Amino acid sequence: MRLVVVGGVAAGLSAASRARRIDPSAEILVIEKGMRISWGACGLPYLIEGQVSSIEDLVVYRREVFEKERNIRIRTEAEVTAVRHGARELVLANGERVRYDRLVWAAGARPARRASGGRVFSLHTDTDGERLRAFLETQRPRAAAVAGGGYIGLEAATALRARGLRVRLHHDATTLLNREDPWLTQRIVERLEACGVEVRLNEPADPERLDADLVIDATGMRPNAELLAEAGAALGRTGALAVDEYQETSLRGVFAAGDCCEARHIVSGRPVWIPLGTTANKAGRVAGANAAGRRERFPGVAGTSIVRVAGLAVAVTGLSQQQARREGFSPVEAVIEARDRARYFFGRRLAVQLVADRSSGRLLGAAVLGDQGVLARINTAAAALAARMDVETLAGLDLAYAPPYSTVMDPLLVAAQQLLRML
Amino acid sequence: MRLVVVGGVAAGLSAASRARRIDPSAEILVIEKGMRISWGACGLPYLIEGQVSSIEDLVVYRREVFEKERNIRIRTEAEVTAVRHGARELVLANGERVRYDRLVWAAGARPARRASGGRVFSLHTDTDGERLRAFLETQRPRAAAVAGGGYIGLEAATALRARGLRVRLHHDATTLLNREDPWLTQRIVERLEACGVEVRLNEPADPERLDADLVIDATGMRPNAELLAEAGAALGRTGALAVDEYQETSLRGVFAAGDCCEARHIVSGRPVWIPLGTTANKAGRVAGANAAGRRERFPGVAGTSIVRVAGLAVAVTGLSQQQARREGFSPVEAVIEARDRARYFFGRRLAVQLVADRSSGRLLGAAVLGDQGVLARINTAAAALAARMDVETLAGLDLAYAPPYSTVMDPLLVAAQQLLRML
Repeated sequence: MRLVVVGGVAAGLSAASRARRIDPSAEILVIEKGMRISWGACGLPYLIEGQVSSIEDLVVYRREVFEKERNIRIRTEAEVTAVRHGARELVLANGERVRYDRLVWAAGARPARRASGGRVFSLHTDTDGERLRAFLETQRPRAAAVAGGGYIGLEAATALRARGLRVRLHHDATTLLNREDPWLTQRIVERLEACGVEVRLNEPADPERLDADLVIDATGMRPNAELLAEAGAALGRTGALAVDEYQETSLRGVFAAGDCCEARHIVSGRPVWIPLGTTANKAGRVAGANAAGRRERFPGVAGTSIVRVAGLAVAVTGLSQQQARREGFSPVEAVIEARDRARYFFGRRLAVQLVADRSSGRLLGAAVLGDQGVLARINTAAAALAARMDVETLAGLDLAYAPPYSTVMDPLLVAAQQLLRML
Repeated sequence: MRLVVVGGVAAGLSAASRARRIDPSAEILVIEKGMRISWGACGLPYLIEGQVSSIEDLVVYRREVFEKERNIRIRTEAEVTAVRHGARELVLANGERVRYDRLVWAAGARPARRASGGRVFSLHTDTDGERLRAFLETQRPRAAAVAGGGYIGLEAATALRARGLRVRLHHDATTLLNREDPWLTQRIVERLEACGVEVRLNEPADPERLDADLVIDATGMRPNAELLAEAGAALGRTGALAVDEYQETSLRGVFAAGDCCEARHIVSGRPVWIPLGTTANKAGRVAGANAAGRRERFPGVAGTSIVRVAGLAVAVTGLSQQQARREGFSPVEAVIEARDRARYFFGRRLAVQLVADRSSGRLLGAAVLGDQGVLARINTAAAALAARMDVETLAGLDLAYAPPYSTVMDPLLVAAQQLLRML
């Protein structure tokens, strides 16, 4: 069995590694367009900020781990230009053909708009990161504009401000982080402004025309789905590749995982396109397992994410109230503020927002803002979503307490109790 | 309706406050044996260590909050000596009788053995804390012995070592923290020894005879259940008061909550006695609601707790493998070590142990050791226990990731994946 994996980062390498573990005899080849494999693009903002000194520090596993320990062939700087599924072959940019029995398409996503170069940057590839870093060091720009208020835009604004630049953030919608949540947006804007970042919401901006020494274009991403679609694979309504719960596309024996494809949202039940490294890793494992003959299911996503915005941890999972309403729920929302641990252990303020469905009492979503204590609350809420837990059960969870780590009535439980009174 | 609550800390005040919210017209009286109400005994180790400068800093709400804002009468230094349930009255130490319609018994627990005074201390009441602190400051002891390897013993050993004393910990069993977990015990012992604490396991010790300038007796607790038992309330097999899911005792109209009573364990389904402030608060709320005429259920406990041992966060939830075996499961266990966040954000080592039932695949318990990242993993596991989640679902949870807070494949998921391979 010859398995070809297109894409050499999170989803692709998870798939290849998992397939190898299941099938020691398969021939496995990973084809990567770029020069590097197994590096974490999530670290790019920290390369810009200076926390990470080199792209090499973002590499998760060395190439040798795959080639020597896992017997996985790796080809870098090899770009696929066509998929001929009838012939079970890929065509590369140099004309070469690569035969496959099974294919895992993990080609990722790309910025919706190609930055022109010069003072305008995307923040997506390793080259983007290195070019931006060199620009910062050699050109010493003083004023930066960031177009886009998704997590990449917010992380970029944070990183540039931390380097001492004047930063202006432009976002075309009224709410940040694709969350349709005015409360969350308000809290993020307050923090950004308190840290000296100017924020302009609801103001479409062409990155190429923004007045600044340096512009980050984080206006949006597109799934790398076209080549497979041309070969006949169905796209979902989001424009990303449609996959079933086994990560199989509409082409038999062709699996997809990561930023190029959709996933089922565990709250709404609908296919969504929320490209994140966590999903890529897990869906990649499932794609790899099934390409190697297993029959495993990917359970779907809750859209759980966390992002550091000017020192504030901002985390979300599930649906906001507005999103829930659009999905046909009758949502209610509670927001509380509390300390994340004992005052005498330097407890920080934590804000917890919970959304539940009025008719069923089921938890639909959560947002948490604060410091290091945010992760515990958002992940507990994410587990509750996966279990389709109601707010009453959530309010009764037996959570851990000691003064250095939490409070006797955990903020998540306080929020759940408040929400319970509104149901 | 006249509601009398016996006990003026976590469970009692939660009950009184909740009853007031539900019934604005009830007469509510709280009777407390000690001088203070609403203080958190969980803070005593930090008073000893010096992180907290006064018992007053451990007070959660001032007395006025209850008396003025909530219209709850408070009597301190009032000790109940008998319960005459036939007459619906309490007898106080001064001979006075106090009538009730409904009673919430939240009398807590006490050290199993009364420390003799002098150089031997319990660490339970506010007076214990103040006396020990004064002893440390005036007598300047150099060598301390701690008897008991439950969480109070471990916290006391940590606090005294942090003050610079030589510390020896004696424990009568082979495993610490009532967990029957050799792996967990081994990790804790290693940490204590690395911090200069001498540990003697499986060595029964009479605190009064230990050779040291200062001895902490943390050898065990007993529920304050006798007076209510004499009035006819049934005790459970653990020796604590038996209650139903509404926190009602076998005496009609008499509810109990907190360290004096049992709770149902959500994994084993059996009544257990695991006295913790978190449980006291939540069960107190339920007792108060039901005493005020509601019909709410307490969902039970998972035994979730976290304790700081010489700088190491040690957290458990559910059952250890040995405990699970005794409860009739066929448990399997996986242990992994991973970083709790990105290396370039100073990620610390985190160890995760998961226990699951081989036949059903259901998660039965977890233990997590590490730094601030421990809370997120143990609470997520606790939520999974409440949902009776299987390991496969756990391994597929959509958890939050950004380099300052976690890793792309969360340590909890890595452990779940490992356990899944063993099922």
